[in-house]
Amino acid sequence: MRKRLVFNAFEMNAVSHVYHGLWRHPANRQTSFNTLAFWTDLARTLERGRFDALFLADVVGIDKGHNGGRDTYFKEGIHLPANDPAILSAALIGATSNLGLMFTSSILQSHPFDFARRVSTLDHLSDGRIGWNIVTTTSRNAARNFGFDEPVAHDERYAWADEYVEVVYKLWEGSWEDGAVLNDPAAGGYANSSLIHEIGHRGQRYRVEGPHLSSPSPQRTPVLIQAGSSKAGRAFAARNAEATFVVCLTPEAARVAVNEIRRDVVAAGRDPSDLLFFQGLSFVIGSTEEEAWRKSRALDEYVSTDGLAAHVGRDLGIDFGRLDPERPVADYAIEGLRGFTQFFEEANPGRKARLIDLVTSMSYNGRIVGTPEQIADSLEAWQDAGIDGINVAYQTAPGSFVDVVDHLMPVLRARGLAQIEYAPGTLRERLFPGRPATLQGAHPATRYRRVAENASAALAATGRG
Amino acid sequence: MRKRLVFNAFEMNAVSHVYHGLWRHPANRQTSFNTLAFWTDLARTLERGRFDALFLADVVGIDKGHNGGRDTYFKEGIHLPANDPAILSAALIGATSNLGLMFTSSILQSHPFDFARRVSTLDHLSDGRIGWNIVTTTSRNAARNFGFDEPVAHDERYAWADEYVEVVYKLWEGSWEDGAVLNDPAAGGYANSSLIHEIGHRGQRYRVEGPHLSSPSPQRTPVLIQAGSSKAGRAFAARNAEATFVVCLTPEAARVAVNEIRRDVVAAGRDPSDLLFFQGLSFVIGSTEEEAWRKSRALDEYVSTDGLAAHVGRDLGIDFGRLDPERPVADYAIEGLRGFTQFFEEANPGRKARLIDLVTSMSYNGRIVGTPEQIADSLEAWQDAGIDGINVAYQTAPGSFVDVVDHLMPVLRARGLAQIEYAPGTLRERLFPGRPATLQGAHPATRYRRVAENASAALAATGRG
Repeated sequence: MRKRLVFNAFEMNAVSHVYHGLWRHPANRQTSFNTLAFWTDLARTLERGRFDALFLADVVGIDKGHNGGRDTYFKEGIHLPANDPAILSAALIGATSNLGLMFTSSILQSHPFDFARRVSTLDHLSDGRIGWNIVTTTSRNAARNFGFDEPVAHDERYAWADEYVEVVYKLWEGSWEDGAVLNDPAAGGYANSSLIHEIGHRGQRYRVEGPHLSSPSPQRTPVLIQAGSSKAGRAFAARNAEATFVVCLTPEAARVAVNEIRRDVVAAGRDPSDLLFFQGLSFVIGSTEEEAWRKSRALDEYVSTDGLAAHVGRDLGIDFGRLDPERPVADYAIEGLRGFTQFFEEANPGRKARLIDLVTSMSYNGRIVGTPEQIADSLEAWQDAGIDGINVAYQTAPGSFVDVVDHLMPVLRARGLAQIEYAPGTLRERLFPGRPATLQGAHPATRYRRVAENASAALAATGRG
Repeated sequence: MRKRLVFNAFEMNAVSHVYHGLWRHPANRQTSFNTLAFWTDLARTLERGRFDALFLADVVGIDKGHNGGRDTYFKEGIHLPANDPAILSAALIGATSNLGLMFTSSILQSHPFDFARRVSTLDHLSDGRIGWNIVTTTSRNAARNFGFDEPVAHDERYAWADEYVEVVYKLWEGSWEDGAVLNDPAAGGYANSSLIHEIGHRGQRYRVEGPHLSSPSPQRTPVLIQAGSSKAGRAFAARNAEATFVVCLTPEAARVAVNEIRRDVVAAGRDPSDLLFFQGLSFVIGSTEEEAWRKSRALDEYVSTDGLAAHVGRDLGIDFGRLDPERPVADYAIEGLRGFTQFFEEANPGRKARLIDLVTSMSYNGRIVGTPEQIADSLEAWQDAGIDGINVAYQTAPGSFVDVVDHLMPVLRARGLAQIEYAPGTLRERLFPGRPATLQGAHPATRYRRVAENASAALAATGRG
């Protein structure tokens, strides 16, 4: 029997996340993203299927990236409107009992003192089901929404991220010691002030006195997710992340990436198992392969290639709207397209990749079409390459997830690839069986705990130190 | 039949809000404030009683205000820990269908671009049940949690508040025109970019490009509450607030305050009915007056006078812990205590007010003890003085609210003083019957709408302008 994979639903509090154009599909209810009923229904479906978490992506700005403007983003609802994912996570706590709630928040958007309290509140109310996807934002519009003229330079952004997590670690881990809350009406009062500390942070960007406004939540620090792919981003993830999100083209490519990043984790003094790898995939499931491909072609009819080009181009910093989609990629010397070009031409011998082919295949990268058994075989290959979990993207919502829950999960469970029941405990305990609810080991957050310091002070005071 | 009063439950995402020491009462479940179950139960009780809203107070720092330190605040759980009220509001949306959710957020804690989206998301998910209690924070610790050395000076704080609301008004009212969302699969696409605007705000403290990340929510701008009592604070409320929160000592005092502030509202070019007045009160209800007083005395046994002194002293900027509570107030020349001293000595002829008397009576000010009929009589007097609604403080939660719902509300309903059923629509439509869901008239937020401008442009384009 295999080790189980982690499954997250990869979503966004928006009209169109990955498969642009599909918002027009009559079975897609994602256009109801403004309503709680849509999300409650989705969350309950995921919990029924024993998904580990709802993973909410986010943006805090939309650049003028396609045909020099934003029209395509609005027309196709691509990441705009985009509502707040932390508020949505809060709204789903009561509708679920076990589902993890992982949301994205940029260091650009919130002051860490306020952010830390929002997260602690979420973690308290959910009994420890919260994960934070840490992002540093590169968007120019996002920068300009928060008072900057231009995005902060790359390396400086990660120095900023380092300070940001330092502040929140101090608040979550270093401000209230274990045992600070007494809740003892008879004698001790509600809390013991000698175990509650100001943090006195004075750094490059932030000065934060403290103490933290919330008492320690079940996980203290939420499960930390980070998906930076640059050198500085990967180093940050190696030091801080407990899960990282990759979108590799093949299991073989994943194996290389996973091994490389795990080496960085070890170099950062952590255990290689301290970091989980989530691969982004999506599924079109049929009872036969033919049926699956028929479904896939039917979905394709709704695809907006203009929307896909706008999204992919934005991520690559290329305005595809100004290039001819029918021309071979080779005509444009674009460094960011080399890997995809090679991948496409190997998969389609004798064909020269055109821009349109690339946009389509890049966006569709990670879509697996087949029977549940075929998909299970493929997932085994991803697992063998070192992948710990899957971020499942949808074509229609909740439809794509209902298909996974009803048709794929039973086959995966029979192979041990999916969990049959939720384990008890917090999100962290479920993702890392056998470990406690709070961060342990060489994680930098643990450095701010005062337990040891006070324990030794107490020992010294009793003359036993 | 009388006009109904508005009823809000006055709460805080904390252990102890107003009646300090009562957290020790065996019937008080407020110490479970970290759990969703406590709040869900409370919210359902309020909705059963047709309360208009849950009003959540907040702080973002705790000063060293009692005996030179914070010990009493921790020991008595006074406003610390204090969890995030917006996250709590989000978590209660699904547990309720009609209850308004009014939460406090300081201009100090969140960037207005991010805050505006959180509010829009809340307003979308709740179908328009959100209110924002705007505060400018005077706490030194709060300032130091957000990078300042000292609190921003008073008048400057209101200049800041003016710019803060200007930014969020631009985002809520001026960025997406009505009709910008098409959600039209066949022809127009999801949104019409020509009706979505950057806001291009460039002010003293903020530069915000936009557009707003959320499409217009049911109320666009949430119901605005503001309770500043200084000259600048009252002028801000007169311009911006739709409800203000007062804690007057008597209906007569309320009449003076209400008339004065309504004059300011008119001077600001608004209709006097544009601003509602909520008086803070609490109730101890008995089937006879004797029973009510017996209950009141039993509650009093749990009161922490040290806790009350710490709270009141903090609000007045006086460290009561360093003064002798048994000495006459007159021995200390404290301007902020004059009104209360006079009030106490008039109510207790022949007694010289000691500090301890004052602390107790100031904290208990607005507690009405009696039968439902007696309380109803008293509420009529408050209404006659111009009060539109009551912010109901609790001694025990949810106990105090259960008493109000089960014993007071039926009597109030019989007199027309409380609503029998929720009216349809958003929170704003319920608070202002006959008015639409969005702000109207002379409110400054309406100034940022582009409807008129575009309508005339459209007329001009058709040659009919």
